[in-house]
Amino acid sequence: MIWCRFQVGKTISYGIIENEVVTQVEGDPFEGHKLTTTKHPLSKVKLLVPFVAGTFYCVGINYRDHIVKMAQKRGVEPQFPPKPDIGYRANNALIAHEEKIVKPKDSGEAFQYEGELVAVFGKKARNVPKEKALDYILGWTIGNDVSERTWQRNDRTMWRAKNSDTFKPMGPWIVTGLDYRKMTTTIRLNDKEVDRFSTSNMIFDVETYISEITKYITIHPGDMMWMGTDGMPQNMKPGDKVEVEITGIGVLRNYVVAGE
Amino acid sequence: MIWCRFQVGKTISYGIIENEVVTQVEGDPFEGHKLTTTKHPLSKVKLLVPFVAGTFYCVGINYRDHIVKMAQKRGVEPQFPPKPDIGYRANNALIAHEEKIVKPKDSGEAFQYEGELVAVFGKKARNVPKEKALDYILGWTIGNDVSERTWQRNDRTMWRAKNSDTFKPMGPWIVTGLDYRKMTTTIRLNDKEVDRFSTSNMIFDVETYISEITKYITIHPGDMMWMGTDGMPQNMKPGDKVEVEITGIGVLRNYVVAGE
Repeated sequence: MIWCRFQVGKTISYGIIENEVVTQVEGDPFEGHKLTTTKHPLSKVKLLVPFVAGTFYCVGINYRDHIVKMAQKRGVEPQFPPKPDIGYRANNALIAHEEKIVKPKDSGEAFQYEGELVAVFGKKARNVPKEKALDYILGWTIGNDVSERTWQRNDRTMWRAKNSDTFKPMGPWIVTGLDYRKMTTTIRLNDKEVDRFSTSNMIFDVETYISEITKYITIHPGDMMWMGTDGMPQNMKPGDKVEVEITGIGVLRNYVVAGE
Repeated sequence: MIWCRFQVGKTISYGIIENEVVTQVEGDPFEGHKLTTTKHPLSKVKLLVPFVAGTFYCVGINYRDHIVKMAQKRGVEPQFPPKPDIGYRANNALIAHEEKIVKPKDSGEAFQYEGELVAVFGKKARNVPKEKALDYILGWTIGNDVSERTWQRNDRTMWRAKNSDTFKPMGPWIVTGLDYRKMTTTIRLNDKEVDRFSTSNMIFDVETYISEITKYITIHPGDMMWMGTDGMPQNMKPGDKVEVEITGIGVLRNYVVAGE
C-alpha cells in the first residue's frame, strides 16, 4: 500500500495511491482512517512531506564504505561506531518531493546529498525485542540528508550543517509491506548515477536500532528513523537536480537553488 | 498571564490560571483561544507538560561556572563555546510537574539534575534581529535537563544520557510578560538548596541564540529552547525530591524513582 499526504487547492489530506490515482482519506495512517469517495489523478496533486513527523531519529553513520571513504578524504583513520547510538535531526528542515533545496549563501562548496532509507513508525514501541522490531514500522520512505561539511566539522553541533531549512527532503510517499533487506539505493546527480549501494548493508540493522533505542526511549506513531548513507557523496550546486531512488519505494527528486 | 495544560477526568485542555483558579479555554496559546465558562480550582486539576512541544532546542553549555566546575571534576581544561551552536533534545522524555523521573536500572551514580530556563516560542521566526528576538517568545517555563554522566561521556551521541523517557521534566506552566534578565534559578534536592544562580548570566543570551539560529532555521510556534544550567549538579537517587525554582515562574517539582 502506498500512503501519501497531498494538497489539492486548499485541502490537505492523507491519501492512498493505486494505479496513479489518489483516494483521499479521513484521518491518517497512524490513528486510523476511512476512505472517502474523492479521487484525484496522481499527476494533479501536490505531494507534501508524506506525514506530519514526530521525533526525527537519525542513525548518522551506519555504512562501512561511507566511513572509510569520508575518513580517507580527511586523511584520518576510519572510526566505526562501536554500538548503535542514535542521533537527531529537526523537522523544520523537511521538504517534499520536487521541492527546492536552498543552498545558504554563506555555505561552502562541500554541500552534499546523502540518500537514505527512512523507517516510519506506526505504533508505540518500548522494550521491543529484535525479532518483533519490524512490526512497529508502518512503512518506508526516502530521505536526503543534505549536509554542509565545513559546518559539520567545525560547529560544536550539527545544527545548521544538517538542519538548516530545506536540508531534509523526504518522500515521495510511504510504502508498506516491503522487505528492506532486498532494497538497492541509487543516487543520481543531474541524471548521472553517482552512487549505488545495497540498502541493507548496514553496520547495525534496523531491528538492532529499534531494540536498543526502545530500552530507554518510547517511540511514538509518526516518529521516524533515517538509516544513514553509504558511499562518497559529491558536491551539489545551484541548478543541480538530485534524485534518490530506493527499490520498491520510488524516486525522491529535488532541485538545488541559491539562497538569497 | 499564566498558561497551563491540564487534565480533569478525561478532558485535556489548555487553561489560564488566575488566583489559583484555572479557566478552561478552547484552542491553544499558539493558534488562538477563546475563554470558556468552565473553571476549576488549581488544586483539583492534574497539570500536564505545559504545551504540545514542537522542536526541542537546547543550548547545552551556556554558563561559565558550570563549564569550569564540570571540567575541574573531570581534570580537563574548561572549554567555552566560541559561538552559539544550538543542540537538540527529544520530546519522548518530557514529563510534567510532580511526575516521576525514572532512573534506569543500568544507569550509574552520576545521575544529575540541571535546572534550566525554557523559552517557549509563540510565533514563526526567520531572520530575526537581536533587538526583536524576544517578540517571538510567548512565555517562559522551567526545565530539568536530567543527565546520566557516564553515558554522556561515553556514547557517541547524547541520546540516552539526556533523552531517556522521563529525563526532561518541564513545567509547571508558562508565564508571559517576564523579564528573564531579572530571574534567579534555585535548585533544591530534598528541600536543601544545592544551587543558586542568576538566570541571565549566560555566555550567549536568549536574543543572540534566536538571532543566530533563525539565520538558517525557521522557528515555529510551540518550539522551545532550553537555555542551559549553571553550577555543579549533584547526584540524584531513587527517593529524592528535586525542585527547580525560577523567579516569577514558579517551582518545578519531581520525584526520582528506580526503573524496573
